[in-house]
Amino acid sequence: MKYLKMLFKFSLYFAVAFLFHFSGVNSFITYIEPRHPLRGSRAKPGTPWPLPQRWIQSQKVLSLNSSNFRISSNLKDCDVLTAAIQRYEKFIFADVNGTQNPLLPTLLQVNVFVNETSCAYPQQGDDEYYLLEISSVKQGVIEARTVWGALRALETLSQLVYQNEKTRAYLVNETRIDDWPAYSYRGILIDTARHFIPVSTLKQNLDAMAFNKMNVFHWHLVDDQSFPFESKTFPNLSKYGAYSEKQVYSQTDVKSIIEYARLRGIRVLPEIDSPGHTKSFGKAYPELLTPCYGYNSSTPYVPKYPHFSEAETLNPIEENVYTFMSNLFQELKILFPEKYVHLGMDEVYYECWESNPNIQFFMKVNKMQNTSQLEQYYVGRMLQIMKNIGYKYMIWQDPIDNGVQAADDTIVQIWKDSRLDSKLGEWRESAEIIAKKGYRMVVSACWYLNYINYPYPGKDWENFYECNPRSFNGSNEEKQLVLGGEACLWTEFVDSTNLISRLWPRASAVAERLWTNPQTANLDDARFRLDQQRCRLFRRGIPAAPILNGFCEDYAI
Amino acid sequence: MKYLKMLFKFSLYFAVAFLFHFSGVNSFITYIEPRHPLRGSRAKPGTPWPLPQRWIQSQKVLSLNSSNFRISSNLKDCDVLTAAIQRYEKFIFADVNGTQNPLLPTLLQVNVFVNETSCAYPQQGDDEYYLLEISSVKQGVIEARTVWGALRALETLSQLVYQNEKTRAYLVNETRIDDWPAYSYRGILIDTARHFIPVSTLKQNLDAMAFNKMNVFHWHLVDDQSFPFESKTFPNLSKYGAYSEKQVYSQTDVKSIIEYARLRGIRVLPEIDSPGHTKSFGKAYPELLTPCYGYNSSTPYVPKYPHFSEAETLNPIEENVYTFMSNLFQELKILFPEKYVHLGMDEVYYECWESNPNIQFFMKVNKMQNTSQLEQYYVGRMLQIMKNIGYKYMIWQDPIDNGVQAADDTIVQIWKDSRLDSKLGEWRESAEIIAKKGYRMVVSACWYLNYINYPYPGKDWENFYECNPRSFNGSNEEKQLVLGGEACLWTEFVDSTNLISRLWPRASAVAERLWTNPQTANLDDARFRLDQQRCRLFRRGIPAAPILNGFCEDYAI
Repeated sequence: MKYLKMLFKFSLYFAVAFLFHFSGVNSFITYIEPRHPLRGSRAKPGTPWPLPQRWIQSQKVLSLNSSNFRISSNLKDCDVLTAAIQRYEKFIFADVNGTQNPLLPTLLQVNVFVNETSCAYPQQGDDEYYLLEISSVKQGVIEARTVWGALRALETLSQLVYQNEKTRAYLVNETRIDDWPAYSYRGILIDTARHFIPVSTLKQNLDAMAFNKMNVFHWHLVDDQSFPFESKTFPNLSKYGAYSEKQVYSQTDVKSIIEYARLRGIRVLPEIDSPGHTKSFGKAYPELLTPCYGYNSSTPYVPKYPHFSEAETLNPIEENVYTFMSNLFQELKILFPEKYVHLGMDEVYYECWESNPNIQFFMKVNKMQNTSQLEQYYVGRMLQIMKNIGYKYMIWQDPIDNGVQAADDTIVQIWKDSRLDSKLGEWRESAEIIAKKGYRMVVSACWYLNYINYPYPGKDWENFYECNPRSFNGSNEEKQLVLGGEACLWTEFVDSTNLISRLWPRASAVAERLWTNPQTANLDDARFRLDQQRCRLFRRGIPAAPILNGFCEDYAI
Repeated sequence: MKYLKMLFKFSLYFAVAFLFHFSGVNSFITYIEPRHPLRGSRAKPGTPWPLPQRWIQSQKVLSLNSSNFRISSNLKDCDVLTAAIQRYEKFIFADVNGTQNPLLPTLLQVNVFVNETSCAYPQQGDDEYYLLEISSVKQGVIEARTVWGALRALETLSQLVYQNEKTRAYLVNETRIDDWPAYSYRGILIDTARHFIPVSTLKQNLDAMAFNKMNVFHWHLVDDQSFPFESKTFPNLSKYGAYSEKQVYSQTDVKSIIEYARLRGIRVLPEIDSPGHTKSFGKAYPELLTPCYGYNSSTPYVPKYPHFSEAETLNPIEENVYTFMSNLFQELKILFPEKYVHLGMDEVYYECWESNPNIQFFMKVNKMQNTSQLEQYYVGRMLQIMKNIGYKYMIWQDPIDNGVQAADDTIVQIWKDSRLDSKLGEWRESAEIIAKKGYRMVVSACWYLNYINYPYPGKDWENFYECNPRSFNGSNEEKQLVLGGEACLWTEFVDSTNLISRLWPRASAVAERLWTNPQTANLDDARFRLDQQRCRLFRRGIPAAPILNGFCEDYAI
């Protein structure tokens, strides 16, 4: 254990790296020539995605088989690890025709040592470092500080094992991997309001996330279009706000998704967006929304007539709004073990607030000069509510852009990008300004996966892969404020028919950027490795779309 | 039957149209208010896609149920019709909880009358007109000249029936439809070489085509990347040219696809592309390909060294090529009942031909001034072979662009579009030139469905919907040379994981353009009708992707 502790001192890695003689690693690899030159899979078999930070592999190969191979761990009472070991033993030996090569040394076991016994729920900033060694002398060893690090190691182990194409013998090279994520926050956002996404699809996505070492499922639960979340405090929200009674996530559904994620080391961060994007709240509680006023075309002599059809923003001068939100978020806090909540706060419809005479009166009485002061008022009250509940919070960048002051420990999510809309400004400029204000950040601006070939046409996953979330102007300290990034899938044009094939393996490109953070993005190398990863996903039941001509051996037919 | 014959005289339709009082049709419709205003389905229930040419509907509603409703026909020995009636009775009564409204008149039967008894195989130019009447007095009548027209009528009938949302009673309005396609050729191209597409996926696509009244499956069988077609004459073509032994269409597979298509009134038009795009032929028969010559970088003192790795074009001076192609196409002619074959002929690698000293010598001896004369030589020989075999043919536009003379009855497929690549020129200009040369045409240039948001960003199916294949400069006679169009799905980034959701309902936009050919493209109206069509496809088991926020009632969860 002393050895392990020493390894955790990151400062030592750079010295160690020289000893590992990295540049020559490929020449040590036993490269199995593909049976067919056209099949488009030039990555060496058993290459993990995302690439580990430090990886040495020798030409020495061990063989293993399901009947005598075992993964054991020093944590006997940790359900997360027990379940993971069962899952990964199945993934490793997925081929019913798999064999062993009796001429090679046998890998009989991998022993997992975890320092911290905590096994409850992954949280922001948890250590995910692991050491993985496979050798004929010492057998397999995984060392990690936390169970979450051990999960990442097991994922890597399962990806290191490959099969001889002819004999189908399970093989693994002698290997030493020291690995840790470049960013602690590696997320996927799924919007379940524009289309309802079935629980089974959300779980399939959690599987794919685990296969790519991603660790945050940002659940954009509700929006203008629908309110599919069952609140026990306010059951009418989903009763009237969901598309239909079947298109609701019951609290049992939510719990089962959280548990499924927890077992894979994935946090479930719920978002209830407000004060904008709340039209669906109004199906049950119209009094919470701000009536917008305008000139009514059918009765031209009634200027400033309230247009309830446009109501989509909470009414910040309505005290019931705060009581309501407090109760709703208290319920959320009990249901979700996550310490953070996402408060949304994007795209507030200022024109509606400004059109409303009661709001204008309120602003006058309270000496508010402009609408951003009103937004400040709403944000301030909401953050106080969150403080009372004991929630930490994340918000979209909009209030900060509008000059609103949030609490210092707010995490700000960067989404605006001039390539989406020239009016939005370049995301690196926003990030620079927000970093100067000292907020921690999560970047999504270059990872809107609902867009294809975005932002540069003719490139798709390559654009995602090349985006460096710290590539804005700023000091090293300011860049450290970026906790990570998030691939967003807004579901205007996505539902169960195409969600998984739209996300994967495109989100894998984001995953490697956030885990490995390669110094130079070698797209040609990444392309073939990504193809291997897509085939790995495919074999594990994820309908990930192809990114190269060819096929996945016997699987993709 | 006299009445029917009269109706076939198209000149009468225009007079009849006035009587039908078209502009007011919508006001006659019993519009059922959606249960939930957010569900995003504002098309009136039971609206057929593509829209019929002439459609009147009264407010009078009939009800029907599966236990006593029957479709009968005057053709007792036509397997196509018998199978179709069975299929459509199932589609109409798909809901196991469907009921009947006893207070409404009952629709007990629909009688199908077909003039021509031929039931063999659909061919280019077959008549697809039909008349469909539903009335409480006369019950249901379908009249068509051919069995293929009757299939289109049954599709429409199945789309006219809808259900009351509460009682789930099956309903249909009194209706009269006279309908025929604006274009006789309404195709989908699927490339099975860049990725192998499983037989089950191809059949699912044929189902979707039938649901959209499309009638040509252009099967781009083989290409540079792989040769998945099993030739009995040359079994080594797929043995060495396919991705794997499992990624081959056996002749049994091919026959089953042809039969599946025939039963749905869909032609299967095979393409063996040559002389370019033949790299995979070289896996078994390298001697058929032209060796390309260049300067070898590793042996710089050997100029003009043959680079076999670049060989991807048949060798036009090699007599074996013509014998080989003659035998291969003879085999195709026996296997496919289709009168046409697609010869490809696109993107010939001139530089390779020009680099080859033997070809240069051949051109000199035969007094050829330039490479297009060599292409002319290849095309001429191939067309002669087709003539000998008894094949009619279709080719891509490239030889015509290169000044090659094809036979007068060649159908030329337009694919080049400046929005794909500025060097390719505007498709309408190509079409104008090719029309002036008198060739019949099929347009695909604006329907490359592998591109998303193409050619105008921010629009997707709308671009496809708005493309008019006759919108080039030319006389009416020249425009009549356009037989129709074809949505192409090249499979660089598509396989079984995403083919159907990539194609549908985007190809439905092409289907309505080619069938109905709306004079003014009302996108807002089409959007909601297209959403209804996507839900119809979804209910019938096609994972068609959403195009609007919302859901498909109980189905899309």
